[in-house]
Amino acid sequence: MKYCSQCGHDIQFSIPDGDNRPRYWCDQCGVIHYQNPKIVVGAVPVWEGRILLCKRAIEPRIGYWTLPAGYMENGETLQEGAARETWEEACATVAVGDLYTVFNLPHINQVYMFFLGEMVNGEYAVGDESADVGLFSEEEIPWDELAFPTIGRTLKFFFQDRASGNDYPIRTQDIAPLKRKPSLDDAL
Amino acid sequence: MKYCSQCGHDIQFSIPDGDNRPRYWCDQCGVIHYQNPKIVVGAVPVWEGRILLCKRAIEPRIGYWTLPAGYMENGETLQEGAARETWEEACATVAVGDLYTVFNLPHINQVYMFFLGEMVNGEYAVGDESADVGLFSEEEIPWDELAFPTIGRTLKFFFQDRASGNDYPIRTQDIAPLKRKPSLDDAL
Repeated sequence: MKYCSQCGHDIQFSIPDGDNRPRYWCDQCGVIHYQNPKIVVGAVPVWEGRILLCKRAIEPRIGYWTLPAGYMENGETLQEGAARETWEEACATVAVGDLYTVFNLPHINQVYMFFLGEMVNGEYAVGDESADVGLFSEEEIPWDELAFPTIGRTLKFFFQDRASGNDYPIRTQDIAPLKRKPSLDDAL
Repeated sequence: MKYCSQCGHDIQFSIPDGDNRPRYWCDQCGVIHYQNPKIVVGAVPVWEGRILLCKRAIEPRIGYWTLPAGYMENGETLQEGAARETWEEACATVAVGDLYTVFNLPHINQVYMFFLGEMVNGEYAVGDESADVGLFSEEEIPWDELAFPTIGRTLKFFFQDRASGNDYPIRTQDIAPLKRKPSLDDAL
């Protein structure tokens, strides 16, 4: 951030008066340009016991598989965001259920939130940001080709809860930055 | 938003190529300035059965009572944010527990998230953004002087769950914009 989006003046990066941390702010017009974490919202769409996954056609992690998920947009609810992402990435309509997993990723200023979901008619297709879409049983999940740790953990919890009849309690976890080359374990 | 924060050029507001909704973006340097919902994170700090509330010393809703809560900051977890806000507003140390309430406020692009919490030593004081701070029993809650609907609903759920031995299940709700003058019922 180099210029004030309100007045076009050069921007400062320092602690504003009355604040306790550095911000981007403008000493010409006085506006403080706050930056805050973004919500990535997604769904675990289920149809006849199988889970809908999308192969990413865009970076990051192009070619790897993900649950439908993306940045929550202004003007929508979390549940609307989860349904919208499922529609955009997999052309599938999902009835969004309970909040299921919440992951803090403070090193990249993100909070991931996945909702349980039932596909309404089992129909899906390859959306704009996907290279492939499919329904996977537990045995068919491409565990070594998952895009993000949030995906593997959510799927692992889901199959554990389904097997144990756990009623899918909400799970909240922190995910730390990788300090080495990613491996299969990172997806789990 | 009038100027590109990257290059200082005049900004556009239209649908970028390959997107499906209008964004602020720069046709000089190509940067899209995404805007996304913010997380307001807070705690329900409890000490010997009473709840810690803060009287707001800043707008909006100056002079009204709130649970400690505020915008989540980059680089922190939700739980760290809830503890930080409790410290900043009430000079109290809280052991943050489970996620308890989640509110969608799509008309103002916010998601509120409150965590259960136990105060570690019962100590508190008036923080920078507060005019007063105190511990309140259920009978003492100033129901007609609460700052936001998210506060009243969270407190109402809390006392209901405590009375029924409900183990504080997570609650997710949407809050719609007010179409009339606020009244007591809005806080509940």
